[in-house]
Formats: sequence, structure tokens, C-alpha cells
Amino acid sequence: MALWLEQASKDFEAQFAAFLTTKREVSEDVNVVVRAIIDDVRARGDAALADYSARFDGLDFAVTPMRVGKAEIDAAFGAVDPEVIAALELAAIRIEKHHSRQLPKDDIYEDDIGVGLGSRWTAIEAVGLYVPGGTASYPSSVLMNALPAKVAGVPRIVMVVPALKGEINPTVLAAARIAGVEEIYRIGGAQAVAALAYGTETIAPVAKIVGPGNAYVAAAKRHVFGTVGIDMIAGPSEVLVIADKDNDPEWLAADLLAQAEHDRGAQSILITDDAALGHAVEAAVERQIRRLGRSETAAASWRDFGAVILVPDLASAVPLADRIAAEHLELAVDDPEPLLAAIRNAGAIFVGRHTPEVIGDYVGGSNHVLPTARSARFSSGLSVLDYVKRTSILRLGAEQLRALGPAAITLANSEGLDAHARSVAIRLNLGD
Amino acid sequence: MALWLEQASKDFEAQFAAFLTTKREVSEDVNVVVRAIIDDVRARGDAALADYSARFDGLDFAVTPMRVGKAEIDAAFGAVDPEVIAALELAAIRIEKHHSRQLPKDDIYEDDIGVGLGSRWTAIEAVGLYVPGGTASYPSSVLMNALPAKVAGVPRIVMVVPALKGEINPTVLAAARIAGVEEIYRIGGAQAVAALAYGTETIAPVAKIVGPGNAYVAAAKRHVFGTVGIDMIAGPSEVLVIADKDNDPEWLAADLLAQAEHDRGAQSILITDDAALGHAVEAAVERQIRRLGRSETAAASWRDFGAVILVPDLASAVPLADRIAAEHLELAVDDPEPLLAAIRNAGAIFVGRHTPEVIGDYVGGSNHVLPTARSARFSSGLSVLDYVKRTSILRLGAEQLRALGPAAITLANSEGLDAHARSVAIRLNLGD
Repeated sequence: MALWLEQASKDFEAQFAAFLTTKREVSEDVNVVVRAIIDDVRARGDAALADYSARFDGLDFAVTPMRVGKAEIDAAFGAVDPEVIAALELAAIRIEKHHSRQLPKDDIYEDDIGVGLGSRWTAIEAVGLYVPGGTASYPSSVLMNALPAKVAGVPRIVMVVPALKGEINPTVLAAARIAGVEEIYRIGGAQAVAALAYGTETIAPVAKIVGPGNAYVAAAKRHVFGTVGIDMIAGPSEVLVIADKDNDPEWLAADLLAQAEHDRGAQSILITDDAALGHAVEAAVERQIRRLGRSETAAASWRDFGAVILVPDLASAVPLADRIAAEHLELAVDDPEPLLAAIRNAGAIFVGRHTPEVIGDYVGGSNHVLPTARSARFSSGLSVLDYVKRTSILRLGAEQLRALGPAAITLANSEGLDAHARSVAIRLNLGD
Repeated sequence: MALWLEQASKDFEAQFAAFLTTKREVSEDVNVVVRAIIDDVRARGDAALADYSARFDGLDFAVTPMRVGKAEIDAAFGAVDPEVIAALELAAIRIEKHHSRQLPKDDIYEDDIGVGLGSRWTAIEAVGLYVPGGTASYPSSVLMNALPAKVAGVPRIVMVVPALKGEINPTVLAAARIAGVEEIYRIGGAQAVAALAYGTETIAPVAKIVGPGNAYVAAAKRHVFGTVGIDMIAGPSEVLVIADKDNDPEWLAADLLAQAEHDRGAQSILITDDAALGHAVEAAVERQIRRLGRSETAAASWRDFGAVILVPDLASAVPLADRIAAEHLELAVDDPEPLLAAIRNAGAIFVGRHTPEVIGDYVGGSNHVLPTARSARFSSGLSVLDYVKRTSILRLGAEQLRALGPAAITLANSEGLDAHARSVAIRLNLGD
């Protein structure tokens, strides 16, 4: 059974505040190990990568080369069920189309006194994409991370993926091919992150590293941040479903379980104004949970972090939703517009009863990499903007410098910065 | 004397690579102290703030209240030289105008099969602005950090500034008034960052913290990241000047010194195709440096990190500039267009001989908070985008779900996620 909270109860605020700050992640302190691995890769390059792959993945690069060849990628593509290929291709087309609309436009203009100002966007020169191995190896994530980089115009996309005994999930390679990723290395862990950040004899360094990974990968990304850019460090997934009474409890239970099955730390929350619906959803969750392949994971997540919150009316859900700031928010209500307009904080909103969050995981077209752990209060999901950067441009002629220079000199002097003042004054013949 | 490098020399690549990786910051390990301060503020709130302010700033909140009152702000405004006020107001108007163009537009549309897709931007609900005390207390930085938040529509902007014996630089308060910041607290250091992130009895928590600070502030920002958003952790400032032979060496020397006077770790680099100009600039730097108020700082920066790089022609400067990825790049050449078009990595570009970087520090209109330490390869200067976040919106009807659902089920099954598949299937009566 999940937690049951009622807003009408006297101690609701204290309970809700405690619920919000519940830690859902076991944080392993792997920094010492990770730092040693990074130093080793910086010092020994390819030789270090070969040692770690032999040790962790039982892999000999002399037999199975570090770089995955084109023939191997094509063979994997050919081996995947054509129905899955078709679904990936549909997803890719929709993701690419939607993300194309996110390309920022340069804005270069002259203001009223003739000063040239500009914001110019350029693609990041090279990006590394980490893809986890094992059960966390999701082909859909390859599309979600790689396609926005393609759309942004990133000229070089490098994928790394750990390969136990050399094996890589063929669907992951098929997704890479569909996304146009050609430079793929059979490496993983902190050593792969180090190789991407600092380069080795074989792998040229990149400027940014994206993609999910385990505690070692996350720690390694934190370590190399600054040398390269990184994306957010994602926590366990969440869904918040706001539902009125006119819902099929089975549908909502299925949606809550779709988050819960991801991870024992995942979180599924239902907010409703109808107690009967709340109880019916709880019962449906218990029934459905038993039949899942990952029933143990889903049960632990629902028991430890799931919640049903009863509110007196749907408008009362708004401030709660803003405080939860869910990664995924479903509005399973008759008239979603008022809620949609009123809620400020959510990674993605799924509107209406026919938009289960799972559509957004795969084929909706929007990105499934979204801010977790309440970070939707201040950050956004992955987009084309994560693969470009802006250079600001300023251009004055002698006349504009005469117009603006004196104010700059005044401010530089007031801040005690002589050389600042002089670099303007000298051009206006005000210097000495 | 700064470093002198010639691209034509045999060992240039090794020398340049070493130059690029020179560490310019002394990193103090203050994590233990910072963590203790943060824990203390979380546990004791206002009482902890009062203790730290008494200890570090010689300040008694019973006498001088923590919050800076409106009368005090107005008095400070009145006490500042009217010429400085006028310059700040000119700067504010230009910054606000330029940044208004950066407001991202929502994009809500329906695709060809009737799926509703959207990107909706909302302002962050509350932002904290850290302003350093002492010599690093720059009124211009108050404008540069606060005005983009105003333009973004952030409803609550909170400023914190350490106040030795209660005193705050009146120009900083004047800048805050001009930027429309009304909630100001006389606190600083890691304790101020903790108060902004977690809140106290007096200070409601914010969702993001921006602004420069010393090692303690930077470490505290790293610690609270995740609980709140943070801006970049800025390193020492840099300028790269690309110059042809037709320059007044005195002008360029002044520009190089305007960076060098900031900090002993600042870096000023000249790339030129004319050895005579290079030598003349070096001589001018040595002459001008003696007359600066901060001559010791500037001399140390120029001696330890300054460089003149001689290239055979200006086109050869392009790949070097992209590897340096300077925070500030001046193009002091006859025809800047080809360089401007070819260079990918720079925080801001100042075009032509009449655009000293200092104009961008104060009154150009663009932001002076820019990526340092080569991070312009993957990140951008501060903008309105740093104060908003994007929610993606997806809306399907029954018909669209019938169209896209089967592909989502296929992919969910191929990833072994039963509940994902079921949450779609159950709505299509494909479930059991």
C-alpha cells in the first residue's frame, strides 16, 4: 500500500513536506574509485581502457576491437525484429520533426544609435553519448539523446556502450544507425567518461557528455564537468497523475505502474478529489502489479514512495503539483485547460485521458529526458538547446563609442578598475 | 614579460597544448567547512545566520536588521554620485532592451495526425542573487544578473550581500533599486547560499541561485545544486585579442590590461600576424602597467598567464581561437567578417577596433556574465533563458492513440517494460 494523504487533515502540511523531501536514491560514494580510474585513463589512454574492459567486461580488444565496425552495426540492424525497426523509425521521424522546431534563431541587429548587437548560435563541436549496458540499455534513449544533437548540427557524435563479453544489445545498435551515429566504442563506466572528456590515442575528446548511467558514470560526469559540459544527472523517474472521478481506475493504475516498474526509487503519485477513485486505483494497482515481469521492483517503488493524495477540489491540486514539480504530469480530467494553464512546474504534461505518459517515452515526438527530483522548478528537459551555445556579438564604430564610452568610464572608475576606464578613454583621446 | 609563442616554430603544438591546460585558479578545499555551515543553517535557520554574521562580519542583527529596509536602499541611492546613477540607468535600459529579445516563445501546435505538441516556457518562481562584498562588489554585476530575471518575469528576486560591520557599498544598493530588486538581506558566504536554498524563518527558499562569489560561495553552490538550480561557477576572466598590423599598440595594451587587472588568475592573450605589433604591444603593456591602481595584480596576471602568439596569417588564428574558446574575443582587424564567420567558440565577440571589451562589461547591452576557462566550447553567457524553464506538452485523443499506440507497445515490449506496454494497451482494449 502506498501512502494516503488527505489535504483536509490537520497535519497534512507536515506530512506533505516530509513526503517531498523523502530521499529516493541510495547514494554510493564512489568518488575515490572514479578519480583513480579517470587519472589512469588520462595517463595511459587506450592501454587503460583495454585493462578495464578486460577486467569488467571480460573483453579483449585484440580479438574484439574497441570500435564497433559498420558491418557489425548493419548486422545488428538486420537481426532486429522488423516491427521494432519500424517502431524505432516512426519514433525517430517524430522526434526529429518536433525537435527541428527548437532550433534557436540568430538575432543580429543594430539598435537606434547604430550599435551592432547579436546572439549567434553554433552547434557544439563534438558530443559524447553514454549508453548503459544490461537491463538499463534502452534503444529509445539512444534516439532521444542523439537526434536533438543531429538536429542541432553537432558535426561529431560519439557513442560509448559497455559490452559484456563484447556483446551489445542489437536494438541499441539499430537505434544508433537510425539516429545516424557512426562512431561507437565498446567501453563503459567511469573509464568511458574519462576517455570522452580527455581523449585517448583512439578517441578524440568531445566537448560535452550526455546520457544516463550508474553511480560510477554519474560521479565521473561530475568529475569531468568543467573540462567538458554534461547534461543533468538524472535521478529515479516520477509520475504525478491528477484525476477527477470519471476515470477508469485500471487505466490510472497502469500509468502509475509504468513509472514504478522502472526502478525501486521511482515514484508514482495520484492526486484526486474523489476518495472512491483513489481507493479503486489502489486496488487496481495491487491487482495489476502481480502480473508484471518486474513486479518486485514496481511493488517496492509503490510501497516505499507511492502516494494517493485526496484534495477537496482539483484547483487545490495546483500548488501541490508545483511543489512536487514532477518529471511527468498526467491531467486525467474532463477539462484539463484550467489545470494546464495554472501549473508552473512540470517536466512534461500529458493532457487528457488518452495521453498516457508512455506515449512520450517512445513515439510522441517530445523528449523523454526530463528533469527529476523536483528540478522542474528550475530546469527543462533535453532539447536542441542542450547541443548549441550562444555567442554574443557587439560592434561599435567610433561614433557609438563616443556615445557610450563616457558612461563606461564612469562605471569603471566607480568600481576602481583603472585599466577598464583607460581602454575606453584612450580611444576617445581622453587618456593620458 | 608574457609568454611568446610562434606558430611557425617546431614545438608550437606542444607549447600551445601546455598553455591551454595551465591551471589559473588556486583551488582551496573548503568542502568540510562549507558542509558544516550548510547543515547548521538547515538546522538552526535565522539563529545560525545571526551567529555567522556576528563572527564574520562583526554584525548584530538586533541592532542592524538582517533585511535591508527600503529607507536604507533609498538613502544609498541618494548618496551615490548622480553621474554614476545616470551611467547605471543608461546601462540598465540597454541591458533590459537587449535581453527582452531573448524571451523564448511558446510553441504549441498540432501535427499532421492531430497530436497536440508543445513547448511552454515559464519563469522560475524565485531566484537568489549572490553579490560579493569588498573589492569584488560590482554594481554592474547586480544589473547583469538581476535584469534578465526581471525580463524573464521571475516574480521574486532575492539579493544577499555580506556587510562588514553592516555596511554595504551604496552603489550596489543603488544598482539593486534600479534593477527593481527589493528583497535584500545582509548576509554572505556559504550561510547565505544555504539560507537561499533551504530557507529560514525569515527567508523563504528560492529555486535557483546565481551570482559570483569566493571559494566558499562556489563550494556552497555546488553543494546545494540539485535542491536548487545554480548558474555556472565562473573562473578567472579572459580576453583574446586577434589583431592585424594596423593597430595602435597602446589601445591593445589597454585592453589586455583591462582583463589582467581583474585577478592574478586572469588571462590576456594577443594573436597577431605581425611580430612588430606583438613587440610594440608588449612594450606598451609594460609602460601602462606601472600607472594602474591594481598594477601588482595586472603584472602578476600578465607575467604568469599572458601570451603573445605569432601566426603566419590571420586565418591561422581561427583554430587556435576555437581551442582557446575565450570568454571575451576582440577582433581588432580591418575586415573582421571572415574571422567572425569562421570562429565557433567564444563567449562574446567584440568586433572592430572601436569595440573594446569594456563596453560589454557595462553599457553595450549584452551580458557580461560569460563562460570562462574554455567552457565556451559547450556553454553560453547568462541570458533570459537561465531564468525560465520549458515544459513539454503532449495531447492525444482516442484516434491519435490508436495511430501511435501500437508502436509504443512494440518498443515497450522490446525494452522488457510490461507496465509501459499495458498502460497503452489497456486504453486500446488490447490489454487483458
